Amino acid sequence: MSDLTSTARELIDVGRRFDARGWVLGTSGNFSVVLGRAPLRLAMTSSGTHKGQLVVDDIVEIEVPGPSSTVPGPSSRQPSAEARLHLEIVAARGAGAVLHTHSIWSTIASERAAPARGLAIDGYEMLKGLSRVTTHEHREWIPVLENDQDMPRLASRVRETLDAHPDCHAFLLRRHGLYTWGAALPEAVRHVEILEFLLETVGRLERG
Amino acid sequence: MSDLTSTARELIDVGRRFDARGWVLGTSGNFSVVLGRAPLRLAMTSSGTHKGQLVVDDIVEIEVPGPSSTVPGPSSRQPSAEARLHLEIVAARGAGAVLHTHSIWSTIASERAAPARGLAIDGYEMLKGLSRVTTHEHREWIPVLENDQDMPRLASRVRETLDAHPDCHAFLLRRHGLYTWGAALPEAVRHVEILEFLLETVGRLERG
Amino acid sequence: MSDLTSTARELIDVGRRFDARGWVLGTSGNFSVVLGRAPLRLAMTSSGTHKGQLVVDDIVEIEVPGPSSTVPGPSSRQPSAEARLHLEIVAARGAGAVLHTHSIWSTIASERAAPARGLAIDGYEMLKGLSRVTTHEHREWIPVLENDQDMPRLASRVRETLDAHPDCHAFLLRRHGLYTWGAALPEAVRHVEILEFLLETVGRLERG
Amino acid sequence: MSDLTSTARELIDVGRRFDARGWVLGTSGNFSVVLGRAPLRLAMTSSGTHKGQLVVDDIVEIEVPGPSSTVPGPSSRQPSAEARLHLEIVAARGAGAVLHTHSIWSTIASERAAPARGLAIDGYEMLKGLSRVTTHEHREWIPVLENDQDMPRLASRVRETLDAHPDCHAFLLRRHGLYTWGAALPEAVRHVEILEFLLETVGRLERG
Repeated sequence: MSDLTSTARELIDVGRRFDARGWVLGTSGNFSVVLGRAPLRLAMTSSGTHKGQLVVDDIVEIEVPGPSSTVPGPSSRQPSAEARLHLEIVAARGAGAVLHTHSIWSTIASERAAPARGLAIDGYEMLKGLSRVTTHEHREWIPVLENDQDMPRLASRVRETLDAHPDCHAFLLRRHGLYTWGAALPEAVRHVEILEFLLETVGRLERG
Repeated sequence: MSDLTSTARELIDVGRRFDARGWVLGTSGNFSVVLGRAPLRLAMTSSGTHKGQLVVDDIVEIEVPGPSSTVPGPSSRQPSAEARLHLEIVAARGAGAVLHTHSIWSTIASERAAPARGLAIDGYEMLKGLSRVTTHEHREWIPVLENDQDMPRLASRVRETLDAHPDCHAFLLRRHGLYTWGAALPEAVRHVEILEFLLETVGRLERG
Repeated sequence: MSDLTSTARELIDVGRRFDARGWVLGTSGNFSVVLGRAPLRLAMTSSGTHKGQLVVDDIVEIEVPGPSSTVPGPSSRQPSAEARLHLEIVAARGAGAVLHTHSIWSTIASERAAPARGLAIDGYEMLKGLSRVTTHEHREWIPVLENDQDMPRLASRVRETLDAHPDCHAFLLRRHGLYTWGAALPEAVRHVEILEFLLETVGRLERG
Repeated sequence: MSDLTSTARELIDVGRRFDARGWVLGTSGNFSVVLGRAPLRLAMTSSGTHKGQLVVDDIVEIEVPGPSSTVPGPSSRQPSAEARLHLEIVAARGAGAVLHTHSIWSTIASERAAPARGLAIDGYEMLKGLSRVTTHEHREWIPVLENDQDMPRLASRVRETLDAHPDCHAFLLRRHGLYTWGAALPEAVRHVEILEFLLETVGRLERG
């Protein structure tokens, strides 16, 4: 596990790189990294910050005594309202880092694939960059969930989705963006890059 | 309110960021920030400058004793010819900053949506980054105005449009570009990023 | 007029900016600036250099005693083989700088517009960034010439095209790229940015 | 030939430039440079590294006593699993550098052209940047091979493809990416830039 300041520096760097690619425009996106598990403590980007211009104080620590607890913010800055979704992912997958981005192509994919509640991507070498995938002959199912401002309700549907698709590496929220995760931050970053690549590639290909 | 030099430095930074995304090519675009309201004073990019390569002297101060006044330039540099449009927006919305960009996707949107005199964008999480919007279940109407070289006439139509659409956060000039604003510069910058994201996303989606 | 070293530094900077936008990939593109007119002397990028990684020695001086002269290179480095085209433009337009870029969208435009031997762009505010254009209600004709490896023959066709279209600010070589120019280097750079913007915009719009 | 450390520094720079263009997302891509030929020694990017964030230690040396030898790694880091493909190219073409990238447009091209087992590109000035090509009136055939996780089998098909197309400068692996090479690293880099340009241009053009 990591300490808050060094983790914040890593997230600042991730934010700059994602901003350069246009994946966190406005104040969109949020990132978290597990600092400790007993009790569960996360470093998380605070609400309303521009992810390409983060400073150390924009990363707040949240502690979660139990699954029913609320999410307190130790500083005056509040963690992202979507902290609950990060916690569901950490709980369901044992993830060490969760990244949420808002790219144009993931948003397009989320809309086109919404009627089918997801999209399958298979046969691409790039899939081998996802954890535990060892061949391009892999079929990745990326579920799409309807967006919802009711965070407890959305968190519950995220949990159901993760349970129903135990091998998935990511999901999309419709007209909203991508959630992915990893054992630690570098793996989560790699998953974002791979999934953004694949969503743009299939998005361009499927329309001829 | 802010002083001219520090505001100029902030606008230099905004110009570099927008230039990196290709939103102010050539000498296109213009930016303003309210420095004071009694009398109304604005910092504004001067005419003919490249917004990605601004220097402090490229930002001029303009003072407006009353709505019928002309726009004097205190230095030899002249403020953008579109200063009148900025003043209409400041007057109608109480904005603290106004930003005008010329991106490819906003230009495309302005042309496609011209017959309907605007376009509606709804259901996107990114809309929540617009001021006072708290849910993706929001319908944003972005009016499109015909372009015009007669600035008093265009300013008058801008005022009518802002009156007719009291909740809109932006408008497009046909085959020209985007105008948006904010309570202060960071909010206006955020609105540019959000609207550019949305216009590209719906522009790519609507044609399949 | 300018001296060779300071002009070289300006061209290095232009090359970096164009490279960042993907307009001079490989060793494509070439740039020239008039250093003096009696006799005519040009600073020109030498052949085979990457325009995003130019160094001062990559800019060579060429002197032209008369229109029938060959193009000698004072150093061991040779000016671009397309120097003749630059000289035609300088002669026909009195240009102080000529820029040739190879972007994806100008190449696409050059191919689509080849059957009509050119394309018209009108009604865009961005057109006002072209020299002497004062309204968006301007119709810019961009001629397209068939590409040719025979430089004297191509130079002759360039001269005929410039004579036939005395108001044009640029031309395209089919499946090759864009030539534009300006009274001095900053104007030529501005023309590149404006024309690239317009060619991408109309290229995306015309196919729906 | 070059020493490992200075070659590593060159590959670090190449990786940053390709990463800025989105050609090596995730940990995709791999690069090699011939350090010596008797015995054959290559500097190669190690497996699982991000090519935009390479450090000197990420470049490993591999030595090949004979064509039937395995590929030993002198350090704890392992060369890319695709080292065999690099060795086939070095043997067949006498190449001094081999570069493999995973761009969106090369992936799209590899999929669209797979039924025809390749695509022809002709008539583009940019083709002149390929070694030994002196006119745009050149027809470049880019073979497409089915992707395969069995490296000895894939290496054998690469060899057959290079033999069957003795003039080709590159090939694509289906849904995987681009392989190209050069007499030395700068030529290989130039080939990547030219081929990526051409694949995007024809990819956009062929669908109207």
